[in-house]
Amino acid sequence: MDIALTPVGSTPPLRADAARNRARLLEAAARLAEEHGAANLTMDAVAAAACVGKGTVFRRFGDRTGLLQALLDHSEQRLQAEFMNGPPPLGPGAPAVDRLHAFGPAVIRHEHTHRDLYLAAVPATGRRFEVPAYSLRLTHVAVLLRQAGAGGDVQPRALALMGYLDSALIDHLLTRRGMSPERLEAGWHDLVSRLA
Amino acid sequence: MDIALTPVGSTPPLRADAARNRARLLEAAARLAEEHGAANLTMDAVAAAACVGKGTVFRRFGDRTGLLQALLDHSEQRLQAEFMNGPPPLGPGAPAVDRLHAFGPAVIRHEHTHRDLYLAAVPATGRRFEVPAYSLRLTHVAVLLRQAGAGGDVQPRALALMGYLDSALIDHLLTRRGMSPERLEAGWHDLVSRLA
Repeated sequence: MDIALTPVGSTPPLRADAARNRARLLEAAARLAEEHGAANLTMDAVAAAACVGKGTVFRRFGDRTGLLQALLDHSEQRLQAEFMNGPPPLGPGAPAVDRLHAFGPAVIRHEHTHRDLYLAAVPATGRRFEVPAYSLRLTHVAVLLRQAGAGGDVQPRALALMGYLDSALIDHLLTRRGMSPERLEAGWHDLVSRLA
Repeated sequence: MDIALTPVGSTPPLRADAARNRARLLEAAARLAEEHGAANLTMDAVAAAACVGKGTVFRRFGDRTGLLQALLDHSEQRLQAEFMNGPPPLGPGAPAVDRLHAFGPAVIRHEHTHRDLYLAAVPATGRRFEVPAYSLRLTHVAVLLRQAGAGGDVQPRALALMGYLDSALIDHLLTRRGMSPERLEAGWHDLVSRLA
């Protein structure tokens, strides 16, 4: 089940002008998603906001799902940069168990901030376990568990921890069940203390 | 987050002939689902197999989703009967921690046996956390954790255990990742030992 820790969205390099073009479109899309919600994002609106033809947006992202996926990769890459290369305790340099403790709240806050994007773009079916972002997070947690001295088969513990961080579950608990982010985060620390 | 432990599918009583009619349709649907897969189940085929008009099937179940949901309730009720009233260690009469240990493998085997039904009928989005079957399982696990002497906020531990038993995750691990049921079950026992 192990995969290399390669950040998602590492698409092949584009020519400089194409890359600038893509970044401009993503920036416009991110702004629109923030203002009107990712669920209401249309290819037309992105084209209009970036002052390009609709065909350009389709050529760059394929379809609306491709655009949402690109936005999600963009936001996921920032989170990945923090937990892979950022300052401790989330990033390297702190003991593994401290990094594990820091990982849950970072994901909970990140998903809550970008909740409509995650709910619109992450496959809701079993395919959600096949997206690179999921594999990367799972591997990160499993590696930290091992570094923290956990013996035996760490996969089930990593899977249970990831189950607790499920995007749709976090959203459900915060918005439908009225669970506070503090309780959710305290629960994470309790889980890590028992499983690491 | 607690809910009463009322089995799902406790629909209002039907007149005797209507109940027989419904049972006959469900039996035909279950047989067809077993033979051809739940994903291929149609209202037409159920009507033909039960020798009734298509209108009767629609009147009884609303639509195909309603029929799949009824089949799922039917199969879930059998599992619920086992863990709520069946013989120990899954049912009452065994220590809570033994019942917790027995619960995981029971769910893993049940979901694997009925996998195409779960994948076809369980809402794949955040709504899966609102279906009665999920709430009932979650409450069952939380109650057993408390009975096993777990202190503090047991919800996060119950949620992580339920995350490990996610239908789509189990299917993904068994069929896409080639994880053996034995490893999945050993992982459950390890989790229970650490969390109970």
